[in-house]
Amino acid sequence: MTGFEFQDVRGRGFSRRMALLDAQAAIDAACPPGMPRLVPVGEARGLCLAAPVTAPGDWPDADRAARDGMAINAADSLGAESYNPISLPLAWELSAGEPLPPGTNAVLPVDATLRSPVGVEAVEGLPPGAGVERRAAALSAGAHLLPLARALRPSDLGLLSGLGVRAVLAHPSPRVRILLLGGPRTGGEALGAMLSELVRRDGGLPERRGPVPADADAVVEALRAASVDGGADLVLTAGRTGVGGDDVAPVALAAAGRVDWHGVALRPGDSTGFGDVGGVPVLLLPGEPMACWSAYAVLGTRAVRGRGGRSVDGLGRAVAAVTARKLVSEIGSVDLHRVRFTEDGRVEPLASPMTPGLAALARADGVVISPAESEGVPAGATVQVWLLEP
Amino acid sequence: MTGFEFQDVRGRGFSRRMALLDAQAAIDAACPPGMPRLVPVGEARGLCLAAPVTAPGDWPDADRAARDGMAINAADSLGAESYNPISLPLAWELSAGEPLPPGTNAVLPVDATLRSPVGVEAVEGLPPGAGVERRAAALSAGAHLLPLARALRPSDLGLLSGLGVRAVLAHPSPRVRILLLGGPRTGGEALGAMLSELVRRDGGLPERRGPVPADADAVVEALRAASVDGGADLVLTAGRTGVGGDDVAPVALAAAGRVDWHGVALRPGDSTGFGDVGGVPVLLLPGEPMACWSAYAVLGTRAVRGRGGRSVDGLGRAVAAVTARKLVSEIGSVDLHRVRFTEDGRVEPLASPMTPGLAALARADGVVISPAESEGVPAGATVQVWLLEP
Repeated sequence: MTGFEFQDVRGRGFSRRMALLDAQAAIDAACPPGMPRLVPVGEARGLCLAAPVTAPGDWPDADRAARDGMAINAADSLGAESYNPISLPLAWELSAGEPLPPGTNAVLPVDATLRSPVGVEAVEGLPPGAGVERRAAALSAGAHLLPLARALRPSDLGLLSGLGVRAVLAHPSPRVRILLLGGPRTGGEALGAMLSELVRRDGGLPERRGPVPADADAVVEALRAASVDGGADLVLTAGRTGVGGDDVAPVALAAAGRVDWHGVALRPGDSTGFGDVGGVPVLLLPGEPMACWSAYAVLGTRAVRGRGGRSVDGLGRAVAAVTARKLVSEIGSVDLHRVRFTEDGRVEPLASPMTPGLAALARADGVVISPAESEGVPAGATVQVWLLEP
Repeated sequence: MTGFEFQDVRGRGFSRRMALLDAQAAIDAACPPGMPRLVPVGEARGLCLAAPVTAPGDWPDADRAARDGMAINAADSLGAESYNPISLPLAWELSAGEPLPPGTNAVLPVDATLRSPVGVEAVEGLPPGAGVERRAAALSAGAHLLPLARALRPSDLGLLSGLGVRAVLAHPSPRVRILLLGGPRTGGEALGAMLSELVRRDGGLPERRGPVPADADAVVEALRAASVDGGADLVLTAGRTGVGGDDVAPVALAAAGRVDWHGVALRPGDSTGFGDVGGVPVLLLPGEPMACWSAYAVLGTRAVRGRGGRSVDGLGRAVAAVTARKLVSEIGSVDLHRVRFTEDGRVEPLASPMTPGLAALARADGVVISPAESEGVPAGATVQVWLLEP
């Protein structure tokens, strides 16, 4: 990001737009993870570790049964077979996971056991250690359990609880203030519902505010409130980013704090802006719903995920597919194409990148992103399709 | 699922095990989605539609500006160029999304406009309709918006809110009662934390209960309470499913309701069972944590997702990879192998399918599932790897 100087584009238009990669780099640099906290394991779901976790002790902490059966001294079963049952002087019934009683070193399976009036007989000879999970077989004290920056999985919570780990050092979920700018025309509620859910998906805690009137002073006040009260780790505004007279978001951000860039070579979403108010990063998203979604997908997701300590590549999963038709694009801009799969597994565009609204996105199976230096993608080319299904 | 008769396996062992596909089919048949409800869009995140949604009206509902600029009569701009500005008798400044004022039929971009002391001039000639989004361009009233069984995406919430759709007919999130059976040995808290998070991931509302003592009467009572109070759409128990003396979950389910099957050809997780109490499906998961995870992954996820109306294939995303080493398996059982990627992008096993505990799963990048009829997968074979990262 070199030499950006804020300009009020209202009534003038953009004189330049940031390259998308530079815009992303600026966001990544300005959105570090929050201060690590010691978080009880029961509240750590979805959080990212700020330190690796090691095993607090051996696991299992004693030799124990690996199956349900009879704990025996293996030597007592020597030579036992189904036609030669051998009586066992020592046999403790126990369940998988229970520690071996003293004097035993193997666990006879239930179906290799006979119960007779005089006691228990083996119908299978065991070597020492059969059916036994040795102390520390799974883990030795101090062993590496989970790496730095791990986004905790459901099974990790089970692992940690089971080993008696009570708390982990983790980055808290970022609190993301969503400010809806302007009146009913921008469809604030629609954007609020969508952005809240996107933020949640990326591990953030959304807090919706607004609608804030499309008035520079009101927007300045709302931005300052987000930073001054210390209640937000990131601010997303929606609406009022364009070149019309009432597009006050960028000038309000300049007045309340600092604009790092405004205007990005991305379609749709080219009027997105980014900056800072009192140390809190602020992303200005367009109010047109498809542009808002697009800018969130390639820029907002990085900010939210970055603040939570996650990997910032949050577009989800991609599959390779062949284009059934040309994807028409514009040189100089990264274009986001809504596509669907044809019956033969190729992809076709559903709308031009600049078609507004979310209806075509609802019919799409995924999006294809064409690079800035391309005029589009010809039919028959192989592309990455970022899938929309959860 | 043919001819299963419940047998108490305690102290005897399993005489047969269900094929995994039959076990899955029984779950799918017994876990239909809940009764559809009219749900406000603001509360519908993640739910599945019980009916398709169509557009309540045209969108846009009038011709409107597709960009910020000046609404003009296109004929007035005829012949305008940068060296031949033409004065416009009619020019309304408006923002993208605003309806066109009467008498206008095109929107001149901001940077094709000159403001002079006498008024506004065009420096570009426009055809009628340029910069305009026509009424119904995105959607006509009654057009198909979202299909039956759609799991609502974040952008769908925006689409519906923006079109004024207030509520949708959807299947509610299933309430999933989690009963932890037995004392501290089963690590109930660990399983509770893990299962709650897995249920949440699959769109269910987890409700943890227990630990319930490893006593048949207590388990019968807990199962009946889940069905009788009408508070659960599905019950997951964890622990006490094996062949040991205290493995009371199956006999308790038989006493409280019905056991459809107990024992499945799956490793780990072979002691899983399934049945019904008072119309509520009950899945009996093993208490060994890795077996519990495995059984949830291939069986529990289908029950939770099915009850919510979702597609039941919930293992997530898979990528193809080549095995670096043999995956050793057992004929007659579907085996779940914990694997990691090597530096050259192949996969290698981290543990035998029967290795207990979640530590190897924590080191795994994914799991490979080998079919029942296989003795394993040789080195150099291509397999599907189900990825563990969210």
